[in-house]
Amino acid sequence: MEGIVLAIQEQRLRPGSKLPSIRKFAQNHRVSLFTVAEAYDRLVARGCLNAVPNAGFYVRGHVTEDVSGEQAAPEFDFDAHLLLHKVFQPLGMELRPGIGLLPEDWLDSEGLLRGLRSLAREEPTQFGNYGQSKGNPRLRGKLADRLADAGVAATPEQVLLTSGASQALDLAVRYFVQRGDPVFVDEPGYTHLFLNLRLQGARLLGVPRSADGLDLERLEELAREHRPKVFFIQARLQSPTGTSLPLATCHRLLQLAEKYDFLIVENDIYADLDTSGQLLLANLDQLARVIYIGSLSKIIAPALRVGFIAAHPELIKELVPLKIVSGLTSSELTETLALDILLQGRQRKHVRQLRERLSEAHETVARRLEAAGLELFHEPRAGLFLWARHRAVADSTQLAKQAKEAKILLFPGQLFMPDGRNVPWTRFNVAHSLDEQLYTFLARLNER
Amino acid sequence: MEGIVLAIQEQRLRPGSKLPSIRKFAQNHRVSLFTVAEAYDRLVARGCLNAVPNAGFYVRGHVTEDVSGEQAAPEFDFDAHLLLHKVFQPLGMELRPGIGLLPEDWLDSEGLLRGLRSLAREEPTQFGNYGQSKGNPRLRGKLADRLADAGVAATPEQVLLTSGASQALDLAVRYFVQRGDPVFVDEPGYTHLFLNLRLQGARLLGVPRSADGLDLERLEELAREHRPKVFFIQARLQSPTGTSLPLATCHRLLQLAEKYDFLIVENDIYADLDTSGQLLLANLDQLARVIYIGSLSKIIAPALRVGFIAAHPELIKELVPLKIVSGLTSSELTETLALDILLQGRQRKHVRQLRERLSEAHETVARRLEAAGLELFHEPRAGLFLWARHRAVADSTQLAKQAKEAKILLFPGQLFMPDGRNVPWTRFNVAHSLDEQLYTFLARLNER
Repeated sequence: MEGIVLAIQEQRLRPGSKLPSIRKFAQNHRVSLFTVAEAYDRLVARGCLNAVPNAGFYVRGHVTEDVSGEQAAPEFDFDAHLLLHKVFQPLGMELRPGIGLLPEDWLDSEGLLRGLRSLAREEPTQFGNYGQSKGNPRLRGKLADRLADAGVAATPEQVLLTSGASQALDLAVRYFVQRGDPVFVDEPGYTHLFLNLRLQGARLLGVPRSADGLDLERLEELAREHRPKVFFIQARLQSPTGTSLPLATCHRLLQLAEKYDFLIVENDIYADLDTSGQLLLANLDQLARVIYIGSLSKIIAPALRVGFIAAHPELIKELVPLKIVSGLTSSELTETLALDILLQGRQRKHVRQLRERLSEAHETVARRLEAAGLELFHEPRAGLFLWARHRAVADSTQLAKQAKEAKILLFPGQLFMPDGRNVPWTRFNVAHSLDEQLYTFLARLNER
Repeated sequence: MEGIVLAIQEQRLRPGSKLPSIRKFAQNHRVSLFTVAEAYDRLVARGCLNAVPNAGFYVRGHVTEDVSGEQAAPEFDFDAHLLLHKVFQPLGMELRPGIGLLPEDWLDSEGLLRGLRSLAREEPTQFGNYGQSKGNPRLRGKLADRLADAGVAATPEQVLLTSGASQALDLAVRYFVQRGDPVFVDEPGYTHLFLNLRLQGARLLGVPRSADGLDLERLEELAREHRPKVFFIQARLQSPTGTSLPLATCHRLLQLAEKYDFLIVENDIYADLDTSGQLLLANLDQLARVIYIGSLSKIIAPALRVGFIAAHPELIKELVPLKIVSGLTSSELTETLALDILLQGRQRKHVRQLRERLSEAHETVARRLEAAGLELFHEPRAGLFLWARHRAVADSTQLAKQAKEAKILLFPGQLFMPDGRNVPWTRFNVAHSLDEQLYTFLARLNER
């Protein structure tokens, strides 16, 4: 096999050329027919050879490893197009303080590895069917327990597993939003959600976030005028501002939700990163008016794609068929893996360490951003994000363009605004903002 | 750990009761503090204990393994509700000729196991990000090669990976269908697709399938009157009829698509089960007007949830952002696993054996159904399905109800009709129709 691969790589065997028959190769190399047949078969499986029935084996036209073309750094602007088309491609940047992920080496790769090994010890036939509509029941039980620990009473039947928190949000959008409906969103907030809502035909009503809460007066004005049925909100360690809602604001928001009869979809994907033990909307409301969305991908591994919705039992009954028609069941394989990892004792320790590491990064990055001439919106001291503006460059899109020249990827404020308007703020992921290069760049802007 | 779990199971330790402190437990049992702390931590992770800060460790209220309640066999009727709410729950049936899956032990569980082991040898940090928008590039390359082998030219850039073929269909529905749009579908055809299309507000125009093709006259009538923009079709080994379109019908259908300017979404999830080497819509059309959908879940394991769309590059560019806003990326974990399994030499052999086994089952089941008094719609001799009607019981829903009494799950014709009307036909999955009990039941109906 190695000899043939080498011959192909060195172009001694050219694409399209025919290999000796199995019989001839076996005779020439004094090996058994079986060995040659097996080797050819594996080379076909690897995509090195083509097997043409009744004709023989041929070197393939193109080799599967080679998918160049898409490796080149693409050009991009700082608009929604970046988030939809480019953000998951290699952008040729050296630093990426803009992105919304933890650095790969901050995740518990040892825990993931153990989980994968544990998965390989499971009985494989259990993956031979679609699993249950709501997802793996043991994982749902575990998540219900975790919710109970966090002060939200929910049975496993109230937990619906999804392919990442993104599918959970998508199901909520599809269930609650009809074309033309007004919908409350955080301003600034989560762009992929805005794009999804617009796709569904929603009219976005931005409710301004402040360093210490939410503009409830503006919310009440909008509620009176537009009567939206639902508010998609991230109450805790919000992206992009890093802020969390104080308990009193949560309480008041729920009162307004009652008064103006709207539901609340609480996107709580950063729950595990919270050090405050703060109670939130779902705690006060206990899943009466709040639909709670969580994620395991953020802490374990984004490639896991395991998220969930916890909601009132009657609402879950409505969301299950929506999940089924739009994608059948979620993956029992990744859900079993997630459960294996949650059941490892090490997972809790990893999360504790992660919080500490982020807390230290917050302290460092906050001080360094200030020293480089930036003003902070708020100092959350937890989660991934700091929202800051440069005193010397009022236009954050301009700042991002200059950063791009220096091979630094920043996400300017306009990416997070429901109406896409330019604002002076920029989102910094503290875990990706520890490199000297960033501060050299930022400080240099003050010299002009 | 075992001692504590046993004490909980035997209710010597009751829910809510407090455990000795780590220090006290270590003293009493003469083990190190570290050992006890580790054991408690793992019991917390397993959901057996609660850790209450500054208070100690308590036995949990409910144990995660226990999610009874949903194990009882539910009541159900043979309407869409069954497919949406019940089909993935245990229904208490002894035989399930109705379902659309291969039996778990017909899948290559050894191959899956090797794939999982191989996954556990991958570098885990590669799963620490969201991967590329279109999905794992090496798997896309491999799928492009497989398409080339099947006579459809596509680059890896024309392949978009999805969470199962269901997400692929969902993206196509969302992209092509607006509220009120007329859409062509197979009649009978795929119910989950019909439900999804209705959700999106489509008007379904059923094009009757026949044993040897498609009612093209009816199609042309409907095209002239309604001008639909798209036809969702399963050309090969169709569910529920088991039929495949002859080449001439494919050619004529594409001509009509050209004439009346509609696109064709070709759902080809049973491609691997086809023994005929038959060419289909995507071969003739080469992805100009055809959007091709495939699946790896069917052959490897349904829990994998890996499917794909291959289409014209301009269309893929439109579908990528729709995938991203509705669920971000697909799982790099399951895609890497799928690739590992496809690269195993054994996979091709497994598929060959599977085809042979299905072909034998077709022969057996066809003869036995006829002997039991059923008429066959067609004899496909490949794939999963036979479509048949009982001469003694004209009403297939009535047949399914009687079968249910005998603990046999049949799917009557109404489940597959775009308008849900009752038809005399029933779908039999040949791999689940090999038990004597089925024929005893069917033959007994002739005696009345």
